Amino acid sequence: MPDIHDLTRALQKDNGSRIVMLVADGLGGLPLEPGGKTELEAAKTPHLDALSGRSSLGLTVPVLPGITPGSGPGHLGLFGYDPLQYQIGRGVLEALGIDFDLGPDDVAIRGNFCTLDAAGHITDRRAGRIDSDRAAPLCAKLDQIQLPGAEVFVRHVKEYRLVIVLRGAGLGGDVDDTDPQKTGVAPLAPKAKAAGSEKTVALLTEFLKQAREILKDDAPANFLTLRGIDKKPTIPTFEEVYGVKPAAIAVYPMYRGLARLVGMNILDAGQTLADQCSRLEAAWNDYSFFFMHFKYTDKAGEDGKFDEKVRQIEALDAAIPRITALKPDVLIVTGDHSTPSKMQSHSWHPVPTLLSAELCRYDAAGKFGEQACRGGSLGQFEAKHLMLLALAHAGRLEKFGA
Amino acid sequence: MPDIHDLTRALQKDNGSRIVMLVADGLGGLPLEPGGKTELEAAKTPHLDALSGRSSLGLTVPVLPGITPGSGPGHLGLFGYDPLQYQIGRGVLEALGIDFDLGPDDVAIRGNFCTLDAAGHITDRRAGRIDSDRAAPLCAKLDQIQLPGAEVFVRHVKEYRLVIVLRGAGLGGDVDDTDPQKTGVAPLAPKAKAAGSEKTVALLTEFLKQAREILKDDAPANFLTLRGIDKKPTIPTFEEVYGVKPAAIAVYPMYRGLARLVGMNILDAGQTLADQCSRLEAAWNDYSFFFMHFKYTDKAGEDGKFDEKVRQIEALDAAIPRITALKPDVLIVTGDHSTPSKMQSHSWHPVPTLLSAELCRYDAAGKFGEQACRGGSLGQFEAKHLMLLALAHAGRLEKFGA
Repeated sequence: MPDIHDLTRALQKDNGSRIVMLVADGLGGLPLEPGGKTELEAAKTPHLDALSGRSSLGLTVPVLPGITPGSGPGHLGLFGYDPLQYQIGRGVLEALGIDFDLGPDDVAIRGNFCTLDAAGHITDRRAGRIDSDRAAPLCAKLDQIQLPGAEVFVRHVKEYRLVIVLRGAGLGGDVDDTDPQKTGVAPLAPKAKAAGSEKTVALLTEFLKQAREILKDDAPANFLTLRGIDKKPTIPTFEEVYGVKPAAIAVYPMYRGLARLVGMNILDAGQTLADQCSRLEAAWNDYSFFFMHFKYTDKAGEDGKFDEKVRQIEALDAAIPRITALKPDVLIVTGDHSTPSKMQSHSWHPVPTLLSAELCRYDAAGKFGEQACRGGSLGQFEAKHLMLLALAHAGRLEKFGA
Repeated sequence: MPDIHDLTRALQKDNGSRIVMLVADGLGGLPLEPGGKTELEAAKTPHLDALSGRSSLGLTVPVLPGITPGSGPGHLGLFGYDPLQYQIGRGVLEALGIDFDLGPDDVAIRGNFCTLDAAGHITDRRAGRIDSDRAAPLCAKLDQIQLPGAEVFVRHVKEYRLVIVLRGAGLGGDVDDTDPQKTGVAPLAPKAKAAGSEKTVALLTEFLKQAREILKDDAPANFLTLRGIDKKPTIPTFEEVYGVKPAAIAVYPMYRGLARLVGMNILDAGQTLADQCSRLEAAWNDYSFFFMHFKYTDKAGEDGKFDEKVRQIEALDAAIPRITALKPDVLIVTGDHSTPSKMQSHSWHPVPTLLSAELCRYDAAGKFGEQACRGGSLGQFEAKHLMLLALAHAGRLEKFGA
């Protein structure tokens, strides 16, 4: 039975059309009270509303009903990769989040500084949440470690969090966490989950031995635990499976990293939405697919700030005319998941999605929001099928079967 | 994991009820302008509208979102066979389209007459699109070819197109096209894609050798290329998987052929919708499932004639009372795909679908059309699940599990 990408490989055609996928992170929301409006419904969005009248609306289910995705699965779904099939380890995601360019032979690991007592037992799994100013120099010290037969990179992320990358031939990524998930016990020794990762275990054992010596006087950060040890998944490239030339315009490194995972070209996005629009305009003739990422809707939701999320949605709305002025053949506005400010977290709620194209069924909704999307032509569908709709509306898919 | 048919095999029961599935080919459409009506919405359909009030409405997705199906996958989906699992080669479909009754050992091939120059290179892949009057006698000559150890049938289709069928034991269907898809080069030699098709390759090589001699003075049709070489897929019969006794009433051979593929009984449909209704009435007591196919909605759409498609939908509507007078336990009106006249082609847009039965949730829509279906009880769902709904509403499925 062919999968989605077997289909798109067989059916793709290049007609020169252009697709823009604008992802407002955590776009979907919840009303604070029964009968109330969501953040998107409360926002004044004249440009998105006008666009709705020339669009098909719907709701995307990021993974499956009820499943709340992280940023990784949320974006892979939007990019048309089944997030249950392509799973990204936490170490890999952490590396992507600091713009570390992982190679196919790299093993990425998330590290947490921790505190050990005289008996070698963990007394604090986050080293008193030490601040970045104290943690960064410790990472620099660890980065000096030399291992036999492999390179090792140690990079600070934030506060007590760091990334370790092992680079060398023949390294497997099937190694258990060393974090025992409780205090009062010693960290676990690295242990292979499957054959082929013995060399990785040996390298990490040596790394931890040296790290223990290096950090011995640095309490509360006098050791570290390792989690999410993995290689990056092998993912067919966007260009190969869809036949488009893709570009990513994202301010935050995590989303550049996710785009890089599927082989998108990473453009310098600047710092603001206006910068991103300028980059889009400048690169317009060089690519056929543009992924633009807007972070602040999610951030406001995570902070529990309803009004701030409304304001960020309005800021996004103000940028729409610069995008529509380019006359993309298909313009999609969606999110990778919902982040209701009421929940202060990602959620499973389906995500309002708008697809505007010459060949769409026009829903003639007056307002872009959860309620209008619920009754829209696209219905409720798995996010992994959104790319099929994008390509179809762009005229980039041949007929299936005779 | 059981598939759909494992379920229906286990749950089917025969309560003597009758189901009519009326397929208006290419039924779904698009408005010409934002805010406009589709063909179905523009049509005056008093009978379908009245029926809507006693029906559940919904939209079927023929294959997957964004995937435009040919007639083969479109109908297999409606018949409840996953169109990604059961794929039909072009040669098989072409044979079905001329009412050629393919057996399980037959290899069907689409042929195109082409023009060769003195060097044996193709100068025209369609032999100047010679008309049927000139092509048919050439097919008759080719039909005289004798092959060792197998029968060969050559049938004219239309203009430069023909069908070749090899019949014999041990013939595989995994053979590459001989059409090089360009001019200025020689046709390719038949070549096996997989083990088990060597005998087919040998037969086709001999066939082409003789054909070249036979056609040598018939320029521009002095040779032919072969495409879509395949056997018909092995498909479990409708009667076995659903426990109904099925009949097909279709004017066009292609749709009779598709019905034959799933083991339906093919009734003489006459030439008009009125003929089809008469046949339905006459056969009413002999079958429990009726597939009625109406071609002209698709044809008008393919021709880009919005008003003509409206008129054909109105003609279909006029036939509804003769069908409802028979009091089928379940009446479904749907399409195998959309054919918006705006696009002059099949499309991926979900298809308006109406299911009327005593036990349905009545949507009480005033009008049968895309917009009403968008908000209907059946929601938007993959066409391959429509047969489950048909059987359920007909009381033909037992409870699953205790």
